[in-house]
Order: sequence, then C-alpha cells, then structure tokens
Amino acid sequence: MENKKNIMDYETVALDEENHALVIIDQTKLPGKTEIISLTTQKDIWDAIYLLKVRGAPAIGDAAAIGIYLAAKNLQTDNYQEFYTEFKKAKEYLDSARPTAVNLSWALNRMEKVVIDNKAKTIAEIKELLRQEAIAIKEEDIWICQKIGEYGLSLVKPGDGLLTHCNAGQLATAKYGTATAPMYLGHQKGYNFKVFCDETRPLLQGARLTAYELSESGLDVTLICDNMSSNVMKNGWVNAVFVGCDRVAANGDTANKIGTSIVAIVAKRYNVPFYVCAPTSTIDYETPTGKEIKIEQRPDKEVVEMWYKERMAPEGIKVYNPAFDVTDNDLISGIITEYGIARPPYTESLQKIVALKNKKQQ
Amino acid sequence: MENKKNIMDYETVALDEENHALVIIDQTKLPGKTEIISLTTQKDIWDAIYLLKVRGAPAIGDAAAIGIYLAAKNLQTDNYQEFYTEFKKAKEYLDSARPTAVNLSWALNRMEKVVIDNKAKTIAEIKELLRQEAIAIKEEDIWICQKIGEYGLSLVKPGDGLLTHCNAGQLATAKYGTATAPMYLGHQKGYNFKVFCDETRPLLQGARLTAYELSESGLDVTLICDNMSSNVMKNGWVNAVFVGCDRVAANGDTANKIGTSIVAIVAKRYNVPFYVCAPTSTIDYETPTGKEIKIEQRPDKEVVEMWYKERMAPEGIKVYNPAFDVTDNDLISGIITEYGIARPPYTESLQKIVALKNKKQQ
Repeated sequence: MENKKNIMDYETVALDEENHALVIIDQTKLPGKTEIISLTTQKDIWDAIYLLKVRGAPAIGDAAAIGIYLAAKNLQTDNYQEFYTEFKKAKEYLDSARPTAVNLSWALNRMEKVVIDNKAKTIAEIKELLRQEAIAIKEEDIWICQKIGEYGLSLVKPGDGLLTHCNAGQLATAKYGTATAPMYLGHQKGYNFKVFCDETRPLLQGARLTAYELSESGLDVTLICDNMSSNVMKNGWVNAVFVGCDRVAANGDTANKIGTSIVAIVAKRYNVPFYVCAPTSTIDYETPTGKEIKIEQRPDKEVVEMWYKERMAPEGIKVYNPAFDVTDNDLISGIITEYGIARPPYTESLQKIVALKNKKQQ
Repeated sequence: MENKKNIMDYETVALDEENHALVIIDQTKLPGKTEIISLTTQKDIWDAIYLLKVRGAPAIGDAAAIGIYLAAKNLQTDNYQEFYTEFKKAKEYLDSARPTAVNLSWALNRMEKVVIDNKAKTIAEIKELLRQEAIAIKEEDIWICQKIGEYGLSLVKPGDGLLTHCNAGQLATAKYGTATAPMYLGHQKGYNFKVFCDETRPLLQGARLTAYELSESGLDVTLICDNMSSNVMKNGWVNAVFVGCDRVAANGDTANKIGTSIVAIVAKRYNVPFYVCAPTSTIDYETPTGKEIKIEQRPDKEVVEMWYKERMAPEGIKVYNPAFDVTDNDLISGIITEYGIARPPYTESLQKIVALKNKKQQ
C-alpha cells in the first residue's frame, strides 16, 4: 500500500490470489489520498461496495465476481448441495450491498450459473471455474473499454483538445474507462491531448475522480466548472467531447449524468463533435426513446450542504436535483461501442452494431 | 436590527439621517443570517465596501455617495478650501476600497462635482446639496430598476416559469435589482411566477444571494445546479430567462457572469426567450463586439477549495476560472433597458435607445 502511485500502474479492481484478497483503490479517499486496500472478508467486500469504495457499474460487477469467488474458495465442503447453499447465502449477502446496481446482480448471477452448470464436477473444479469466470468478467470489461478506446481514438488526432463530463473513467471500470479510454490510449501513443474536465455538480465526480485519475496518469488536464464549457469551446480549445452513458434508447437518445445534454447543446453550437461512449450492454431496446427514461431525483442536501463548511443556500429553499438528463440523438455525432461506432440515424446503426455483436459471440 | 426580516420591507442601501448612518444588509452573512448594520464611521464604510458587505455595481455607488455625504456632513469648517481639501481626502479614501469598481469612482466623482460646482454657496448649503445628490443617485438607481422591471414584466404573463443566473438582484442595487425586477414587480401584482435559480459556480451567488432574496420576499423559487437548466427547460418549466449584464457591446454581444452564454444557448435550443436586463450605463459603444471584451481570470482556489470542508480536486490540478463569458447577440431575444426594450438587430436598436435617453435627459 503506497500513496501517490500512478494509477496506470494497476487496475481499479484486482484479484490477489496469493493473499486471498480483492484489491481496490479506496475511492472514498480520493482525491486527497491514493489508498490501495486489500479486502479479505466478505464483510469488508460488502462494506466496500456499500460505502462506494468501489463504484461505477462495470467495476462493481468486477468486484462482486471476485468477491463471490473468494467466498466460494473459502467454503470447506466437498458436498455440492452444501456448497451451493452456502454459495447462495454469500451471493445474497453481496447482492444486498447495492440493490439497485444492475451490474452487481448481473455479475453474481453469471457466477451462480457456473455453479449450477457444473453440478457434475468436483468442488475443487467448480472453484477453479469460478476463478476463471471472475477473471473473464473483468477481462471482458477491460476488452470492451479498450475497443471503445481504439474506436474513439480513430476520431481524434494528436494535440487535440478534449472535454468530458462526470466520471466515465478508469475508476468506474477495471481499466481505461469508457469516455476516458481514447484519452488513455492516445496518451500511451504520445498524442498530447489537452483534456478539459467538468467538475460535475453536485457530486463533483469530475473534480474528485476524473481530474484525479487523468492527472495521476500524466495527462494534461484542466478542471473547469460546469458553466464554463461554452467559454472553453468558444476559445477553440475543444476538438471533441467524449462522455459515458447510463442508458441508450433504441433511437440513440442517451441518459447520462445531469448536465451532459448541456455539453451536447453547447458543442453543437460551436460545431464540436459530441461522442457517447457506450458498451453495448447499455443499449436498451426496450426503451424506444429518451422520453421513456425515468430520471432519478436525488436529495436536496447534495446541492446545498454536502461538501460545504456551512450551508450554501437559505434554509427551506426548494431544490430540484435530477441525477441524469437525456441528450437527444440529434446532438450526438457518434455512439462508440466495443463493436464499432454507430452514426445517425441510430435506430438502424445501433441495430447493426448489435447484430454484429451477436454474430461474433456465436 | 432583526433577523429574518422580509427584505422587501427595506432597501439594500439606505441613509439614516437621524443617526448619521449608512444602513446596509451585511451580505457576507447571507444566506445564513439577515443582519442589517448601521455604519457611522468612514472606516466602517470603507470596510463594508472592501469586505463586500455591500456589493453589486449600483449598490456600491449608492453606498459610496451616502458614505461621502456623511463624511462631508461631519466636517467642522466654514472655509470652502479647507472643506474641499478634507472632502477630497475622504473621497480618495473611500475610492481606495475597490479600485476597479467603476460605479464607486463614478458616484464619488459625481458627488465631488457638487462641491466644485457650488463653490459660491455656504458650506451648509453644499452639505444639503450633497445630501440631495446622494439621494438622487440612489433614486435614479431605483427608477432604472423599476423601469427595467416594468418593461420586463410586459414580456411575461402570470404563472410563467422564469430562470435566472447569478445575482443581478435587489442585493446588487438599492431596490428591485435588474434581472429580478420583473419578478418583484410581478410578485407585487400576484403573478405567481415559478422562478428557477442557477446556483452559479464557483462563487454561488445564485444559491447564496438570489435564492435568498427571492425566497425571503415570498417568491416561489427553486434552486438548481448550473448543469440542470437543460433538464428544466426540456420539461417545459421555463417561459423566459432574465439575466443581468456587466457590459453590452455596441452590437448587442453581452458580457455577464460565467455560464450566462450556456443558459442562452440552451434557451435557444428549447425556444425559450432570453432577455438581458441592462441599465443604459452598461452599454459600451467603445466596444464594437464581444470579441473585444477582456475576460477576467480568477484564482483556482475559488473552484477547488473556497467553500469546502476539504479540497475537492487533486493537488496541483490546473484550473481555468474565467469570471465572465460573452453571450453572442443572436442568442438574445431582447435587451431590456430603463428606456425600453432593444430588439435585434442591436446595433440600430441600442442606438435608438440611447438617442431616446439623451433626448429625455435634455
């Protein structure tokens, strides 16, 4: 455990087989302190997920898969039924850490399927298959980010100014991130990007996490308030915007962190291309357009109290605090997935991307 | 002095002749505490201006005029030369409180002109003329805000949703404010506006001041982060935007608090009219377009440290913190002055406004 280690040197979530540990960066200590922690008990792993020491949909899935593998590895039985019963208990426990995190139950279900599908095998063999599956989940996450990074990188050139909003970064995945993947891959190739990073009110993920991880990794990053992107783009300092996403509707409308649609509207004003970095898992064909995406409302205190020395608004003031907004598809220059870049019209191009995915996975 | 008084009950800056005092709301205590303070010494008045207890260009001018009147009133001499020498000293002292505040020296120069132009009169007469001039400066400020409010009110209807950015409010003037003037006048007529107020990073004038003064005055106000205006407008909740301005170029390009141009760009996207409330004193014919307006850069710590319990970004991160941005004239639906509403094309309409002003002042 050491401070100020370059985060490009390790992954956000890792399995330390030798010490029977899940190794993560404690994100609650950022940006003040880079602390790598080794978690060996299920209680510690549960706490890490619950307390957001590990966060970001892919990273949570990766951590849960490693966590449940460690739980299974520890089970002292050769009886399948006993093993499966205990595995289920451990799975339900981890799953309860963040009940609404889709990737958490997705990863745990995928791990359970290994146990179910290999009933005929020995417990030792099942444990080994669980280890392989946990690693596969993480490797797939890394592969997806890397492919998004490669496709994204094809859209920009050395020396470009880039802008991002919130944290769709390495810290939310095992490696590279989504919106940050083109930045990291370009940085490795000496592209000398100049990155502008929205602080992202009210939770400041841009200031606390994105500015941290990019600067720690040696990129040239400048922090701005969310209301400064127009000034920066008008100055001609931004050649492309990369953002992540929470959900992409079938027509390409995209839900992402509150303020994303403003960046897109401003980018359009200044003819700056606006790209959404979206693993195909975020494309939701059940949702025809952005109108059907329900926007989560968050507590007032995030806006008026949370980080402050004292309350920064009058007592009793009404606060509206939506967690996300929807960026209309006409504002999006391209949706970058691990299977290629979808271009407008998205209803067709996104279908082609998924057909390609299904073909390659056959 | 009492807490939680409704600020519509008094003016931001007032002369208490009986107690020989300048009476202001201590804005450094907002929004936590409404404290009305009486300032009797020149040192106290200087401090109030220097420490931003009174702020906003018109309010500073009003306070300085009352301040220098109180200084003059105190002078114990019947000799004009002696009186003028001491007056000049007092003037230079107050002027040093905020050297870059144009309204401060403008108001003090106007007061000095009274002393110069009335050399032939007795000191007692000059003191009375100074009192009248200080009151005139404040009354003109109030008249300008009221006229802007009336013109602004003609552009909206009862029940409308309004949005504003930063504080171009009563707290920056003697009464009504500029961007808030239509809101206050409408409120007096029972218009039941629903006002959305951008918090305005990094200095949070929207959260601390605008949300405060509007809600204290009984208006229905909802605080949002700067990155939420797109969501709010997309919901159809905003019928018009009113903002203040620092300077209007001859072609209508307008410099105002950072983020104003984003609100304008977003408003255009959703076909919401965007109005700039501009006393004619802010129209600068020497500046042909917004390109020639120099943007002040402010310290990093305002973004990463100022209000926080702990630093909210990595140490050493680069920060870009422009205080203002320029809103292009094509984004502005109207520029509301005390002599009427200028409409595009602004080069012509602003000239007509000023011609009208000059005619009425003859």
